[in-house]
Amino acid sequence: MLFSRGISRISSKFLRNRSFYGCSQSLASHRLAILPDQGHSCSDSTHKGYVCRGTYSLKSPGFGGSRHHLYHQSSSVVEEELDPFSLVADELSLLSNKLRAMVVTEVPKLASAAEYFFKKGAEGKHFRPTILLLMATALNVRIPEALAAESAAMVPSELRVRQRGIAEITEMIHVASLLHDDVLDDADTRRGVGSLNFVMGNKVSVLGGDFLLARATQALAALKNTEVVSLLATVVEHLVTGEVMQMTSTTEQRHSMDYYMQKTYYKTASLISNSCKAIALLAGQTAEVAMLAFEYGKNLGLAFQLIDDVLDFTGTSASLGKGSLSDIRHGIITAPILFAMEEFPQLRKVIDQLEDDPTNVTIALEYLGKSKGIQRTKELAMEHANLAAAAIGSLPETDDEDVKRSRRALIDLTHRVITRNK
Amino acid sequence: MLFSRGISRISSKFLRNRSFYGCSQSLASHRLAILPDQGHSCSDSTHKGYVCRGTYSLKSPGFGGSRHHLYHQSSSVVEEELDPFSLVADELSLLSNKLRAMVVTEVPKLASAAEYFFKKGAEGKHFRPTILLLMATALNVRIPEALAAESAAMVPSELRVRQRGIAEITEMIHVASLLHDDVLDDADTRRGVGSLNFVMGNKVSVLGGDFLLARATQALAALKNTEVVSLLATVVEHLVTGEVMQMTSTTEQRHSMDYYMQKTYYKTASLISNSCKAIALLAGQTAEVAMLAFEYGKNLGLAFQLIDDVLDFTGTSASLGKGSLSDIRHGIITAPILFAMEEFPQLRKVIDQLEDDPTNVTIALEYLGKSKGIQRTKELAMEHANLAAAAIGSLPETDDEDVKRSRRALIDLTHRVITRNK
Repeated sequence: MLFSRGISRISSKFLRNRSFYGCSQSLASHRLAILPDQGHSCSDSTHKGYVCRGTYSLKSPGFGGSRHHLYHQSSSVVEEELDPFSLVADELSLLSNKLRAMVVTEVPKLASAAEYFFKKGAEGKHFRPTILLLMATALNVRIPEALAAESAAMVPSELRVRQRGIAEITEMIHVASLLHDDVLDDADTRRGVGSLNFVMGNKVSVLGGDFLLARATQALAALKNTEVVSLLATVVEHLVTGEVMQMTSTTEQRHSMDYYMQKTYYKTASLISNSCKAIALLAGQTAEVAMLAFEYGKNLGLAFQLIDDVLDFTGTSASLGKGSLSDIRHGIITAPILFAMEEFPQLRKVIDQLEDDPTNVTIALEYLGKSKGIQRTKELAMEHANLAAAAIGSLPETDDEDVKRSRRALIDLTHRVITRNK
Repeated sequence: MLFSRGISRISSKFLRNRSFYGCSQSLASHRLAILPDQGHSCSDSTHKGYVCRGTYSLKSPGFGGSRHHLYHQSSSVVEEELDPFSLVADELSLLSNKLRAMVVTEVPKLASAAEYFFKKGAEGKHFRPTILLLMATALNVRIPEALAAESAAMVPSELRVRQRGIAEITEMIHVASLLHDDVLDDADTRRGVGSLNFVMGNKVSVLGGDFLLARATQALAALKNTEVVSLLATVVEHLVTGEVMQMTSTTEQRHSMDYYMQKTYYKTASLISNSCKAIALLAGQTAEVAMLAFEYGKNLGLAFQLIDDVLDFTGTSASLGKGSLSDIRHGIITAPILFAMEEFPQLRKVIDQLEDDPTNVTIALEYLGKSKGIQRTKELAMEHANLAAAAIGSLPETDDEDVKRSRRALIDLTHRVITRNK
């Protein structure tokens, strides 16, 4: 019952602020369905075994204006206690070693720069590669013959190596973006250790990032699938677009939740959503399955970032690794403040004058404390975590135990993302 | 007689310092062959119509240790006065407009950043696209059937559009590297106008460069030829490697002509050589023809940079656009100084202490003035210009007048590169 706990916390006030569309039930019944143990079985055949929680529309361009079903997996499906990371531990270790080896070039200083984020002890949880390797197994199901021409020609292990390539490429793009972000932010810490920029200067950060982007493009080309090359090139463009949206917004844009969500998609969710889709495309899956993989990644990414925004206010510097309140101190407005502004319109003026008067940070925090900003951000994160879980639940049925275990692990990750405290 | 003028200036001292390998004649006869009007007709059948000037070996990794024939086209081949730029003027105009349109995204500030180098009046001569469009026509010859499966399926105009795509991508990669170089160099002028970095800050330079790299990768993916994607991804890696080689060299490396030439290949010649090769690959040409296209680009790029190094000493700030003596003032040792060091070993110590004592720049210039450094650098540039012209001369014969005109224009460019004064 991972998600009913979360959903039961969604207040009626929250519901009044969101648009719900009927699945085949009325809006009223969907409202009731949000309350625990009152869910109805969805009549949509793709959602067998899940309790429909209504649908939710995101209108900003990053989301294509599509409607998403809000539901959670029924308790009978999740039984086994899983550690998603241990399921792919061997491959993650392979991947770490390969990435370290990949950045060793003829020029030692560049190697040490690019290796900076891949070295043992600093690589964190390898969250993205874990998701992608689990997704590879989760999609290892009967492939319609007409679409499987390319992948059928490959022995399964060959396909798996190519999918592992996507995990490696994704991690390279991620680290490249961290390196370039360091230059943009003048950040002096990242992941709790001195940033490369601080230690070695802008030059090596810019070049290290460029080097990883070039290697990622090389590795993409080696996959010999130009649709996948194009998908991941779009990601790099999105990373840039998101960064520029944050840097150059008007006051009106800075006050807009739509603008914030679109920026968050570009900066955080595009990479994992498009690489999940790439995993499906390499396996020769249908467009529908590829879209479900994309939806999982997108919603998990959004949930992750929303919780990150909460932790920037509630966590401690040690657990965040980059100092608490870093967003607001840099004038970056995130979801908790945006929700608080809805309750206290006078907070807008305080926020607009953050740069002029740093004591406004304290005033803003007082408003945030009085508001439901943190709570509503958590609820929105849960909503997206549910959508991610629902995408996995909508995949074609399978009897394969490995496939089912990986799908459960992916759903487990949606829970971990919203309950993490670091 | 474009090149005999150049070759007649190659001194016997210069020849004693280079390794020559026999074509089918002896080393002695090759030495004689360098003198004007004493060339022999080369017995190698690929060089019909050219006067062999001996062969030349470059051993550094960037050059694969291959032997190159040194010869020039006989006077009868070059008759018509050509303006290489006017031959492709219409397409260059199309390309300029397309690049400007390409950088317009939803985020206006990024568009203005990326457009910075593409705006009318600032785009310079579009040297690289000119070469690539001329190369496309120069290779428009009978294609062996077995190798032409993909290109035969395309109508000629479709192939041409794809080749034009390579020209656009090359220009995008070039401008991206300029943007990132600005951050590395803390340059405050570029092409005679305030650099983007100076005007808008590091952030937009880094992001503008990343944006162009992402768009270039997108455009590459759209060509649906993963070998071409891989070639141009290698170029980005080379640009980084060259920059890092310059940044992190040991004293011994800084004194080495081999190291300098390898760095120059990575920083300057790799982009044009690999994109010339891509033009050939898209046309379904043989590996041999693709290699000749590569050799043309590589040697033209090296000649270009060697003359650039000369102009950094001899030009005026106005004509150089970035202030004279900028290399040596930044502690960057280029070919003229390297040659001068061979004559005056005591110059090494002066150069090694450039950073400690800026008056050493004046002392270094005095040594350079007394030496043959400038002259020998020009001679080396001519040598590479000749190799570039020779590669064009070695292309399969054709009766097509357009093809022949484009080849003459490419050879004309090798002359313009070494005689330019800005």
